[in-house]
Amino acid sequence: MWAQREIRLRPRPRGFHLVTDEVVAGVPELRELRIGLAHLFIRHTSASLTLNENASPDVRRDFEAWFDAAVPEDAPFWTHTLEGPDDMPAHIKASLLGPSLSLPVRDGRLALGTWQGVYLCEHRDHGGSRSLLVTLNGDA
Amino acid sequence: MWAQREIRLRPRPRGFHLVTDEVVAGVPELRELRIGLAHLFIRHTSASLTLNENASPDVRRDFEAWFDAAVPEDAPFWTHTLEGPDDMPAHIKASLLGPSLSLPVRDGRLALGTWQGVYLCEHRDHGGSRSLLVTLNGDA
Amino acid sequence: MWAQREIRLRPRPRGFHLVTDEVVAGVPELRELRIGLAHLFIRHTSASLTLNENASPDVRRDFEAWFDAAVPEDAPFWTHTLEGPDDMPAHIKASLLGPSLSLPVRDGRLALGTWQGVYLCEHRDHGGSRSLLVTLNGDA
Repeated sequence: MWAQREIRLRPRPRGFHLVTDEVVAGVPELRELRIGLAHLFIRHTSASLTLNENASPDVRRDFEAWFDAAVPEDAPFWTHTLEGPDDMPAHIKASLLGPSLSLPVRDGRLALGTWQGVYLCEHRDHGGSRSLLVTLNGDA
Repeated sequence: MWAQREIRLRPRPRGFHLVTDEVVAGVPELRELRIGLAHLFIRHTSASLTLNENASPDVRRDFEAWFDAAVPEDAPFWTHTLEGPDDMPAHIKASLLGPSLSLPVRDGRLALGTWQGVYLCEHRDHGGSRSLLVTLNGDA
Repeated sequence: MWAQREIRLRPRPRGFHLVTDEVVAGVPELRELRIGLAHLFIRHTSASLTLNENASPDVRRDFEAWFDAAVPEDAPFWTHTLEGPDDMPAHIKASLLGPSLSLPVRDGRLALGTWQGVYLCEHRDHGGSRSLLVTLNGDA
């Protein structure tokens, strides 16, 4: 079985946001899969997806702190600065974390570990709404 | 053909460990695939998977050195510190490397390059046993 | 439908290079897929693949600048130095960006966002030709 759906995520502030429930709600066909994979893909170059701890908001705040320190807006070597100081760092962060997640599916559910949740990583100050394309494939 | 199996990896010290043979041995159905993909997924948020050089232990030691320097335990901005100084850096490292690998399969074997091997990246001091969920899909 | 093809990329200088058109031209079977996934896999440990901005050469130059600063050749902790000062940093960069991309396919084309393009990330000074293995899977 193959299914593909677009999910529009509402605009969110710069930072790391838990969106697991929103993603699962957007692909009802997930329940039909016995074994399979769910492929989540963000169609942007300044936002990304990752999987991490789904409990403490602290963790998501510390993600933002580390990425801002590791990819500073005022690095002397940026040349692509026309779209604002947050733009080029956003591109680097997006590639470090990546545009997609492939998640195993078992018995109609994402087979995540207890502590794993899907993060939308918004790297721009005003990134606006983001588009996810979710592709499901599996044994129904 | 779809198959899904859990592989329990024994506890390993913090660092980078070659586990290619262990993973292959854990999914005997791999041999039945003519063309396909093997999806390896670690069900944790403080350990990760990557593909890199399978020969020199030097390389794996230098991975640990770089990641420890890039994501220091004593960074002034950590707020999620309750679970120990190695916890928050482990979350960041896990997302930088990612929880999964999708590997091409050809004629019943992983179609890796000559020098590519699967690393278990253990980011905690005492991470314990780790669970992998391997999903195989392909043309039998 | 499954298809698998090797694409040989010609040698390129160290840096980040747009190769979307070359990859698409190398897998004519892509046109037959209504819904599916294209899996791109680089069979090396010192080059990688990522998805990012497909317009400004500035962005690709700034990628090189950031990665060179973040993974310096003269870091005091490298022990794997036999293959030259660019070798160990190349391994780290390769794992930060990853060896593969899974891209959604819709109506015979890669369903990328407007600004997304495939980068070959060449981390060695003289990396030579690079081999990609592309695996297509989908509903024809």
